[in-house]
Amino acid sequence: MTRKEIRLDFERDSRLGFGEAALCAQKTVPQIEEILRQADDARVPFLLTRLDPEKHERLSAAWRERLDYHPQSRTGFLGFASAARGTPDVAVVTAGTSDAGPAHEALRTLEFNQIATTPIFDVGVAGIWRLMERVDEIARHPVVIAVAGMDAALPSVLGGLVPGAVIAVPTSTGYGMARDGETALNACLVSCAPGITVTNIDNGYGAACAAIRALKAMQMIVERQAVAKAAE
Amino acid sequence: MTRKEIRLDFERDSRLGFGEAALCAQKTVPQIEEILRQADDARVPFLLTRLDPEKHERLSAAWRERLDYHPQSRTGFLGFASAARGTPDVAVVTAGTSDAGPAHEALRTLEFNQIATTPIFDVGVAGIWRLMERVDEIARHPVVIAVAGMDAALPSVLGGLVPGAVIAVPTSTGYGMARDGETALNACLVSCAPGITVTNIDNGYGAACAAIRALKAMQMIVERQAVAKAAE
Amino acid sequence: MTRKEIRLDFERDSRLGFGEAALCAQKTVPQIEEILRQADDARVPFLLTRLDPEKHERLSAAWRERLDYHPQSRTGFLGFASAARGTPDVAVVTAGTSDAGPAHEALRTLEFNQIATTPIFDVGVAGIWRLMERVDEIARHPVVIAVAGMDAALPSVLGGLVPGAVIAVPTSTGYGMARDGETALNACLVSCAPGITVTNIDNGYGAACAAIRALKAMQMIVERQAVAKAAE
Amino acid sequence: MTRKEIRLDFERDSRLGFGEAALCAQKTVPQIEEILRQADDARVPFLLTRLDPEKHERLSAAWRERLDYHPQSRTGFLGFASAARGTPDVAVVTAGTSDAGPAHEALRTLEFNQIATTPIFDVGVAGIWRLMERVDEIARHPVVIAVAGMDAALPSVLGGLVPGAVIAVPTSTGYGMARDGETALNACLVSCAPGITVTNIDNGYGAACAAIRALKAMQMIVERQAVAKAAE
Amino acid sequence: MTRKEIRLDFERDSRLGFGEAALCAQKTVPQIEEILRQADDARVPFLLTRLDPEKHERLSAAWRERLDYHPQSRTGFLGFASAARGTPDVAVVTAGTSDAGPAHEALRTLEFNQIATTPIFDVGVAGIWRLMERVDEIARHPVVIAVAGMDAALPSVLGGLVPGAVIAVPTSTGYGMARDGETALNACLVSCAPGITVTNIDNGYGAACAAIRALKAMQMIVERQAVAKAAE
Amino acid sequence: MTRKEIRLDFERDSRLGFGEAALCAQKTVPQIEEILRQADDARVPFLLTRLDPEKHERLSAAWRERLDYHPQSRTGFLGFASAARGTPDVAVVTAGTSDAGPAHEALRTLEFNQIATTPIFDVGVAGIWRLMERVDEIARHPVVIAVAGMDAALPSVLGGLVPGAVIAVPTSTGYGMARDGETALNACLVSCAPGITVTNIDNGYGAACAAIRALKAMQMIVERQAVAKAAE
Amino acid sequence: MTRKEIRLDFERDSRLGFGEAALCAQKTVPQIEEILRQADDARVPFLLTRLDPEKHERLSAAWRERLDYHPQSRTGFLGFASAARGTPDVAVVTAGTSDAGPAHEALRTLEFNQIATTPIFDVGVAGIWRLMERVDEIARHPVVIAVAGMDAALPSVLGGLVPGAVIAVPTSTGYGMARDGETALNACLVSCAPGITVTNIDNGYGAACAAIRALKAMQMIVERQAVAKAAE
Amino acid sequence: MTRKEIRLDFERDSRLGFGEAALCAQKTVPQIEEILRQADDARVPFLLTRLDPEKHERLSAAWRERLDYHPQSRTGFLGFASAARGTPDVAVVTAGTSDAGPAHEALRTLEFNQIATTPIFDVGVAGIWRLMERVDEIARHPVVIAVAGMDAALPSVLGGLVPGAVIAVPTSTGYGMARDGETALNACLVSCAPGITVTNIDNGYGAACAAIRALKAMQMIVERQAVAKAAE
Repeated sequence: MTRKEIRLDFERDSRLGFGEAALCAQKTVPQIEEILRQADDARVPFLLTRLDPEKHERLSAAWRERLDYHPQSRTGFLGFASAARGTPDVAVVTAGTSDAGPAHEALRTLEFNQIATTPIFDVGVAGIWRLMERVDEIARHPVVIAVAGMDAALPSVLGGLVPGAVIAVPTSTGYGMARDGETALNACLVSCAPGITVTNIDNGYGAACAAIRALKAMQMIVERQAVAKAAE
Repeated sequence: MTRKEIRLDFERDSRLGFGEAALCAQKTVPQIEEILRQADDARVPFLLTRLDPEKHERLSAAWRERLDYHPQSRTGFLGFASAARGTPDVAVVTAGTSDAGPAHEALRTLEFNQIATTPIFDVGVAGIWRLMERVDEIARHPVVIAVAGMDAALPSVLGGLVPGAVIAVPTSTGYGMARDGETALNACLVSCAPGITVTNIDNGYGAACAAIRALKAMQMIVERQAVAKAAE
Repeated sequence: MTRKEIRLDFERDSRLGFGEAALCAQKTVPQIEEILRQADDARVPFLLTRLDPEKHERLSAAWRERLDYHPQSRTGFLGFASAARGTPDVAVVTAGTSDAGPAHEALRTLEFNQIATTPIFDVGVAGIWRLMERVDEIARHPVVIAVAGMDAALPSVLGGLVPGAVIAVPTSTGYGMARDGETALNACLVSCAPGITVTNIDNGYGAACAAIRALKAMQMIVERQAVAKAAE
Repeated sequence: MTRKEIRLDFERDSRLGFGEAALCAQKTVPQIEEILRQADDARVPFLLTRLDPEKHERLSAAWRERLDYHPQSRTGFLGFASAARGTPDVAVVTAGTSDAGPAHEALRTLEFNQIATTPIFDVGVAGIWRLMERVDEIARHPVVIAVAGMDAALPSVLGGLVPGAVIAVPTSTGYGMARDGETALNACLVSCAPGITVTNIDNGYGAACAAIRALKAMQMIVERQAVAKAAE
Repeated sequence: MTRKEIRLDFERDSRLGFGEAALCAQKTVPQIEEILRQADDARVPFLLTRLDPEKHERLSAAWRERLDYHPQSRTGFLGFASAARGTPDVAVVTAGTSDAGPAHEALRTLEFNQIATTPIFDVGVAGIWRLMERVDEIARHPVVIAVAGMDAALPSVLGGLVPGAVIAVPTSTGYGMARDGETALNACLVSCAPGITVTNIDNGYGAACAAIRALKAMQMIVERQAVAKAAE
Repeated sequence: MTRKEIRLDFERDSRLGFGEAALCAQKTVPQIEEILRQADDARVPFLLTRLDPEKHERLSAAWRERLDYHPQSRTGFLGFASAARGTPDVAVVTAGTSDAGPAHEALRTLEFNQIATTPIFDVGVAGIWRLMERVDEIARHPVVIAVAGMDAALPSVLGGLVPGAVIAVPTSTGYGMARDGETALNACLVSCAPGITVTNIDNGYGAACAAIRALKAMQMIVERQAVAKAAE
Repeated sequence: MTRKEIRLDFERDSRLGFGEAALCAQKTVPQIEEILRQADDARVPFLLTRLDPEKHERLSAAWRERLDYHPQSRTGFLGFASAARGTPDVAVVTAGTSDAGPAHEALRTLEFNQIATTPIFDVGVAGIWRLMERVDEIARHPVVIAVAGMDAALPSVLGGLVPGAVIAVPTSTGYGMARDGETALNACLVSCAPGITVTNIDNGYGAACAAIRALKAMQMIVERQAVAKAAE
Repeated sequence: MTRKEIRLDFERDSRLGFGEAALCAQKTVPQIEEILRQADDARVPFLLTRLDPEKHERLSAAWRERLDYHPQSRTGFLGFASAARGTPDVAVVTAGTSDAGPAHEALRTLEFNQIATTPIFDVGVAGIWRLMERVDEIARHPVVIAVAGMDAALPSVLGGLVPGAVIAVPTSTGYGMARDGETALNACLVSCAPGITVTNIDNGYGAACAAIRALKAMQMIVERQAVAKAAE
């Protein structure tokens, strides 16, 4: 593998509002280190996702030292500055204990992009009182990321109760006809509560990027209104 | 088609507690009429299911006259005597308007077998207050048949709230990834609420038979206890 | 079918920001007319979707007269007041001529909810210059609905170029391995451009509702900021 | 992982008639130990399912000592009191040797909930005399759990012979087109014997819960009749 | 369509023991008539399969007159001489009324090839006594064609009871997870009774050809033994 | 696991012409040893299939010594007497080197049942001259087992060239859209050469049993003819 | 539908070597007529594909008169000049009569683009002598389009015998596990003969375009060599 | 395993223009060594594909020494002479870092067959400017192999921009609905850019063979023209 085989997109941040990140799942250790080297040379903060603890261990000590690594989310930050403060814009809600991995991936991606978040875990519909207790709190967030596997009834129920953007992350929990998350995914896509959108299975990173896009959309409108006002 | 190609199972009632019925969907009009003739000769009441209005129209006038036909459920009764009375043992609950067909198939099958029922329609979870208003009423029924399509969140939510038998009937409502009911079916099978059992897609008839089996099971225990008591 | 079998959710508007709508695809004409009657009694404007021209023809003349019906989108408005004005917040972009149906469903749903839109049709990537000519115009919209079938490369390319919310609507165009839209759907879900969210196949209505949610989220933030300011 | 990420539903027992249990398959050892700690604090007996021998080994010695662990069923009991006595209400029937795992999961779940059972193993239909010898015995049980993989013909044949509730558990035995149990599942769903209901693949736990629900339904009727009598 | 676009394989009979036949399902009326013309010119008896009554009606009167057409099996014979006599070698057994079509296709194909058959209809396992009554009769046939849809338990049960060749024809009866015969097919492929072989869904013609091959195999052995004897 | 959980079918040989065998893939070592013990007690020769070398190693030394084990076919014989002699009745033909495993499973099963065989390996259609050289030899066998993966064109080509019974064994060779043998299986099921029957993927054992059934069928006819002659 | 909703790509010819064509399957009659109008205004010859005879009939008489329409291929030419002459570069080979539709679509597309072709029909491998007779003729063509459904063994066999480019067009012929062409497609993709490439099911048009690309590639090399020579 | 079980096709080179290669994935080490022995005896250069580093390590030292092995592509050359020189005819283009494996397999196969290539890596459409920078360079190649996973938008975009042969290699990168490459494969098959052909998932070897066939086709035309000229 030579340096020329990898070409990062460092302008993504200015174009889209969030920088490039590298999905490490199918990359070799030399490929990941080359990516870190290019990011470091360009002096841009960089996010690694799907970096298994085993693979993380195989990175050189020098990189491991510089990387802010979080095993449950399998994410690593290079050159991260500081977390967001203020009222959280995004709630990350999970149905069960087994959904924690993708939820943490979303939380860490939002943290890396300096978005404040509220984690609300283990409120699945099998004991619906757990959810009902916290509905008002959830509904105050402009963006809700709902993480659920198996039958993924949580996003449907939430979609009927909260007014903001609802982004469903189906997860690969369960067995048999859970089909590694396909049933959860399809249940989200055909949800009887309208206006829910969906990401790939276990894609906490993608849901966080979608949340950033939604917040960016708001910022665009606010800026447009400011321009319009100034023009009056 | 000759008479010998059809052989009905008239002892099923004494063996199982409900008589044989004929699924008309893939049968020809002459086959259906032959079945009615055999049932009539044997003087057993007989239930037809999946008899489309168009096919019903093509039966001879003589049979049409004798058949108690109900178009929305696509069922016909031959030689039916009288409905059940008393406190209903089975609630048939639907999520949306489009689930009415299989729900009526279940209701009619139970009626034919003299089981009293409570229909509770259009209480899907997208507006969960509709369901919450009626949960206590539903929970008083020993057997609940939950009919729902699309993401089929209704049986999951019900399964966490009612103590009796919950039989889910996934329906073929919806489009795209609803996949003619497969998503609803799979969501029911992997429900996060335990102890829900499931029938084939749109199989209101099968759910009714399962309800009859559950009631039969109770009767067996009661009889056994009576025998035990008598033996004391 | 009796009146009790249908129960509409008229408070949805105040709860979610958009009113209930009825998917007519698997409903009978009597069911649709009963729904219109209830909406009319409640004096709420009402949206019908997936109302085929043939089924529309079978509604009573009285209802047909009062309904603002649009055949290509298969939508009908009851009691609609007036369209939105001002700078459009949502661009609806299609890849090819055959994607027009779901795109019009999204446009009409947004119109019904008084959101101004920009339609941009037939800019699929097979002739990428068609898209490149209009990228800057598209990128100025806070929310972009990208409607595409077959390989659905359009949302991926757009996702790398525009900063706002990108909602992909896969469509059932094509044949063979297009699999009635499943390939387009899956391609959107695994898009190499991050932060794209996806709706069910051909679900222009759902994409419009998601756009309304994203705009609602913006309004929530603005209101929160106003409250915070007032509190200073 | 913090304590707040897990929230158990200890009222489930009073609501549904069986307590919460934890599916350990996709949980980490720290998550399982936290669950045991919460259950222990609340002083409720607790059931663990899908706890592989390897994962069981990795629990702390203190928990291992207190846990009544059964490797073939992969279940563990915490704080279990005593087994049921009396005439068994549930027969658990298997088709072949490879179906023993899910059958033992059902038997242990019933034991934990103090239901008496009859295990009847290895009576698949390829040598139908093995089944015929025991049909009368099986038919005396109000509830029959039929565990079978491959073509799952056993529940169909049983469904035509026994009058009580028949709950089919398809298993993931076999290879090739057995498709990890999907063929068995689908065969059960479309069984030609009516009134069979089905659980997810290998879901012995769910079948046991469904059996408990059926017995609970019976109890509800008996209580209702007692109340009615008292009111006379 | 020109004559050159169709090229029949008239030597198949001498090579394989049964002549070429034409599957009419996806052929146009002109294509079918051209095939009949070529067969007629070559003076070979010819078999048409999957010729729907509607398409049969659209053949020219001259061909219709010469064709021995049987609607339920959708087969037509051109130039057929006489039926077989003697002890039947092949039993064609069906599970239910809806399986009659493919069973008749097999029966007619065997008749066309002068093989004597025994039809045994409607002996599915849901009422297993119907099958048990006739097992000895079935087991006396060297070749058994078992035609069954839905869960296709019949071939499995037969496979455990009869010693000769068992050829399963899964059928597309049923609905929902019957999946147009795929569940029946897969159930046959993973049957717990060994040595069953399987044809495509609804392929009565193919099963008949396989039966002819099995009988041909027998003839080869007999001839070989005769040669061996003569050589002594 | 107790002795009562396993019940073998030792009469299968007299009923079907081949004895019971045990599929070891999903059985534990104690289960396999219990099966051997029962077979040994009953003094019947016994066949084990899908016994991986690793699992074979874990059997007790006593059983390993008594077992005639063949690693490539993963089969073991207990109490096997002697091989067949005479002209082979069954040809086992493979397309490629990777198909050898299931082919050897078929060969060993036939050997165990004292049927003489001809192995013909590596004659797939990509270099059709390899097949053409040996077609006449293959065609002299009454029964041909054709073992092929990937596109499984071999059974189709053979089916057009040989007159006897053709039993196709699709194999799980290949990658990507080979889908672990499903493509090979489906290609065999829809083969354009009629009268081919098919077994489950990699099921060399089942194909051998089907061959034994076909030979048994022949024997039944010969015996019937002898009886008829004697009766003259 | 307004004119702005359709935007054709008239520069495609100069860019790619073949002009834009319109797939009419999911287009309305007004959309098709608008496309013809734009093509006519631009004075470019234009190709319509998948234009069913019924839809063709519904075009205005004026367009019908100007269109060179061919029903079996469902193609129409607008403004076509003259056919190619000279030695054919492309052979279009079919397995069976039912594959004629996509084969004619390929032939017409090549004709429209002035490529000379050789049609070779009905040479499937079930009677392999039909193919062997013509192999040498086929092998002389630089590009071979192999059109086959069901098990699609033809492209595999051809791929082992001809040296030029082999483009497989799987077709939707057959029933049951032919799965509308998916089995044929997968069999082509995993063909044991290397270097075969594949198009979508029934995509004769795409195969023709691929053949044009292959011929264009040749032309590019020849031109490059001429330039190189001139530069010497 | 005996020598007779493997039969190589050494005439393939003269017949097709490229020699036989062995797919090592499902072959044992003894089988691979036997293949090398036969190739060595025949003195033909030989290509091994899908030879994992682990399996390579297990070959005998003698073979390892003689083999030119390349781990990332998992290919080995036996008896390879020298690389091609001159202007590259084939560009191998990848979308992302994870697609490098199949791309190197294609590059190595072309190198083995003495075709000059241009590798162009990491130009996927999520940052389309990376692709646009190099389009002119790519378009100068007669044959383009486009290697892409996930949504595989790269081949579609390329197909609209380059005139020569475009061979798409879908890869198994991604997770969830990427379905091990099936989504990429289907997206390529239904690409909106016409004339793209497709190979099996990850099949870099097959794409290289297809490129060789396309170049062979060119050579055939050139030779034909030379013959024609000479004949003048």
